[in-house]
Amino acid sequence: MAGLSVNQMAWQIAQKLLDNPEFYGVAVSKSTAGATIIDAGINVSGGFQAGKKLTELCLGGAGEVQLGFKTYGDLTFPSITITTDHPAIAALGSQFAGWRIKDGDQIAIGSGPIRALALKPKDVFEEIGYKDQSDKAVLILESSTLPSDALIEKVTGASNVTAPNLIIVVAPTASIAGLTQVTGRIVEVGIHKLRTLGLSPKTIVYAMGVAPIPPLCRDFEVAMARTNDAILYGGTVYCTVDCDDEASLQKIVEQAPSAASKDYGKPFLQIFREADRDFYKIDHNLFAPAELIISNCKTGNSFKAGQINPKVLAESLGF
Amino acid sequence: MAGLSVNQMAWQIAQKLLDNPEFYGVAVSKSTAGATIIDAGINVSGGFQAGKKLTELCLGGAGEVQLGFKTYGDLTFPSITITTDHPAIAALGSQFAGWRIKDGDQIAIGSGPIRALALKPKDVFEEIGYKDQSDKAVLILESSTLPSDALIEKVTGASNVTAPNLIIVVAPTASIAGLTQVTGRIVEVGIHKLRTLGLSPKTIVYAMGVAPIPPLCRDFEVAMARTNDAILYGGTVYCTVDCDDEASLQKIVEQAPSAASKDYGKPFLQIFREADRDFYKIDHNLFAPAELIISNCKTGNSFKAGQINPKVLAESLGF
Amino acid sequence: MAGLSVNQMAWQIAQKLLDNPEFYGVAVSKSTAGATIIDAGINVSGGFQAGKKLTELCLGGAGEVQLGFKTYGDLTFPSITITTDHPAIAALGSQFAGWRIKDGDQIAIGSGPIRALALKPKDVFEEIGYKDQSDKAVLILESSTLPSDALIEKVTGASNVTAPNLIIVVAPTASIAGLTQVTGRIVEVGIHKLRTLGLSPKTIVYAMGVAPIPPLCRDFEVAMARTNDAILYGGTVYCTVDCDDEASLQKIVEQAPSAASKDYGKPFLQIFREADRDFYKIDHNLFAPAELIISNCKTGNSFKAGQINPKVLAESLGF
Repeated sequence: MAGLSVNQMAWQIAQKLLDNPEFYGVAVSKSTAGATIIDAGINVSGGFQAGKKLTELCLGGAGEVQLGFKTYGDLTFPSITITTDHPAIAALGSQFAGWRIKDGDQIAIGSGPIRALALKPKDVFEEIGYKDQSDKAVLILESSTLPSDALIEKVTGASNVTAPNLIIVVAPTASIAGLTQVTGRIVEVGIHKLRTLGLSPKTIVYAMGVAPIPPLCRDFEVAMARTNDAILYGGTVYCTVDCDDEASLQKIVEQAPSAASKDYGKPFLQIFREADRDFYKIDHNLFAPAELIISNCKTGNSFKAGQINPKVLAESLGF
Repeated sequence: MAGLSVNQMAWQIAQKLLDNPEFYGVAVSKSTAGATIIDAGINVSGGFQAGKKLTELCLGGAGEVQLGFKTYGDLTFPSITITTDHPAIAALGSQFAGWRIKDGDQIAIGSGPIRALALKPKDVFEEIGYKDQSDKAVLILESSTLPSDALIEKVTGASNVTAPNLIIVVAPTASIAGLTQVTGRIVEVGIHKLRTLGLSPKTIVYAMGVAPIPPLCRDFEVAMARTNDAILYGGTVYCTVDCDDEASLQKIVEQAPSAASKDYGKPFLQIFREADRDFYKIDHNLFAPAELIISNCKTGNSFKAGQINPKVLAESLGF
Repeated sequence: MAGLSVNQMAWQIAQKLLDNPEFYGVAVSKSTAGATIIDAGINVSGGFQAGKKLTELCLGGAGEVQLGFKTYGDLTFPSITITTDHPAIAALGSQFAGWRIKDGDQIAIGSGPIRALALKPKDVFEEIGYKDQSDKAVLILESSTLPSDALIEKVTGASNVTAPNLIIVVAPTASIAGLTQVTGRIVEVGIHKLRTLGLSPKTIVYAMGVAPIPPLCRDFEVAMARTNDAILYGGTVYCTVDCDDEASLQKIVEQAPSAASKDYGKPFLQIFREADRDFYKIDHNLFAPAELIISNCKTGNSFKAGQINPKVLAESLGF
């Protein structure tokens, strides 16, 4: 895997957005220092195709993304399916929104392949044993404002790339491209939860996931809550692991779905408001897919835990 | 959207058919004046892949098309899924079969991006505020005969393109490519119905749709009836709208599905024959998807009306 | 169809593996004589994307392959969907594992487009009226060892290509790429069974199929048994046929699904062991999809036989 460069792969994918901005509904501009900024939903309409590309970029090109329909109870929604044969690198080494970038008074949350150059956060990259080497970098921001020159300077410095070799793609949560790329984190959320429970990401060999893309709502808080519910009550993750200790694996899988949390069962907006809008007051066990199927290739045994909850999903998604 | 050229995008897609005619099962010829004619089902077998490309051409390249399976009751069928981030342009400005072209004694029904050059019909283009500028044009004909030189002359004249800059793709209803592209109109049928009920197409921001592709039958009337049933009893449309008057929107959605018609409930062939094979005697409210889900991004509320009817679908499709 | 070259099309597809070995998780090497060997699962991890490409290669590029999720009872699995507009050529003329190649003491089972040059077995190619003409060839081996120089010499001789013009892709059954390409044979298994029952493959005009990709197990026998169960208890085939004798067709369809076999109803591993691990002791009627839907375009009638069996599937797949 030495040669897998998430930034080089993402750079190629970004060219599609740059070559067809009208098709993707995106706007391209340059920062003062020459970085390329792609707006996929702030001042433009963006859309599902922009969201698909954004998700591919988040995965550093190390996964496949498909859009389609999926039926949940008696409702049919757009859904996003992720397939990756490099789960640790794609999900934790690239997609994970793990870089908190101070930008004046604000904190921007950065994700995507550039993290594998800046090694943010460092412990994740040590754990998965991966770092990228690339003179080009791609950063994804979930934000409702375009990045400032100061942010760009900070980012290029930390990643050791020049501004002209940096592409930043930005979309707000409350945009179709944003909703698509956030629910496109379904596999990442699953791997993250499994890791928290003690399963090393390096034991996860292949992964797939599917989650509904919630209806668009211009209100940030509602949009954010719906992306959570899409995963907590509508998301499925399937992983192949190579694991020696199957007794421990089985216990981990049982604890992995969102239903293992004491806060499970209500739309996220309600949970969030009951917690005084403080993420740290919410049980972190909640942040997990509704359903996980884990196959251990060492033994051939599979374990399933959790299930889709169409009732809470429908309530959350505005029906 | 000024730069979105449905003809230029379709021209690129058509090259795939021209580069791999054997794979797509199509036959390529030139008209006397030098127009390129692609037969996708008259004297050739065509197929699902040709139908997929035909649908992409109909959408003027402004949408994504996927083929797959979908289960309806206890039957599993091929299905076609459409995703577009430019619903008004793709569906009404290109795909809509809105150009009646006199060809001697016959009337050919033209669709596809060339309509956005010829502005047929003009009121649609005024309503959606779009027209294309392109020296190249792509026309799709649902027909069981190849286009005559006279038709080609008429078409190039009305579109202000030269014959060598015109590609015509033709497939009969009673061919796999034809069935695929006609049921690929699922989103267009939904938008058309919503528009008839008073919803401006410009308020529809993003759209997706899925419908079964009916089994092939060489009889034109049966094939035509089945494409209707695929949409009326098997089609799902999902739209995101940006709408200020939600009370009106809700009423429109309730009236939108095929079930709102008094003629609903029988296979289309039976309805058609009972109407003495006269389309104008059939309640036009019938021409609509089985199921619509409309999300209003202004409020975050969603509305669902209608449902899939596997029973009538199975009867219509020859089981 | 004279121009359809399965080897030329597969050669193009193989370039994607050669251009991005890290992404696909494959290892590329050269044989002594200069043939290109792509390992997709022996000494490497391969994956779903490698399996998808492997399936496309097996089909000689004459079909489309998609990966996704599909729900069987209360379990959701990765699944593979095949669409082909050239069913006889893709399935029997290329994909069918019909070339037994002696390699020292061992017998390697070859499949893929090279068979259409070597005409192995000859009767199949006479029946479907197809042979390829190409200076390049692609061979797929389902094996846990890399091909020997002796095997390569035998293969190039029989196909009349030079070693540098040969690409061999190899994956064991017990690998994700292997499991994917074997269950990707769903349409081929259906066509094969229909042919055995007396339906000429040339009457099959278009075909689609879908089957679950079983969880990986390092044990060969378990992996092999699961690929069989994926098809026998989880596979769906949809064919459009052009058939004059519908009474016979209907009888053939009734006999076509796996359920028509006296051995139906138990996981394949159990059947295999009860037959003393001798394939020839197993009722050959068993090797068929769980479910077939056959549409006759001559009459417009469709026939369905068999059904998915989620219970045996779950048992087989290790739940």
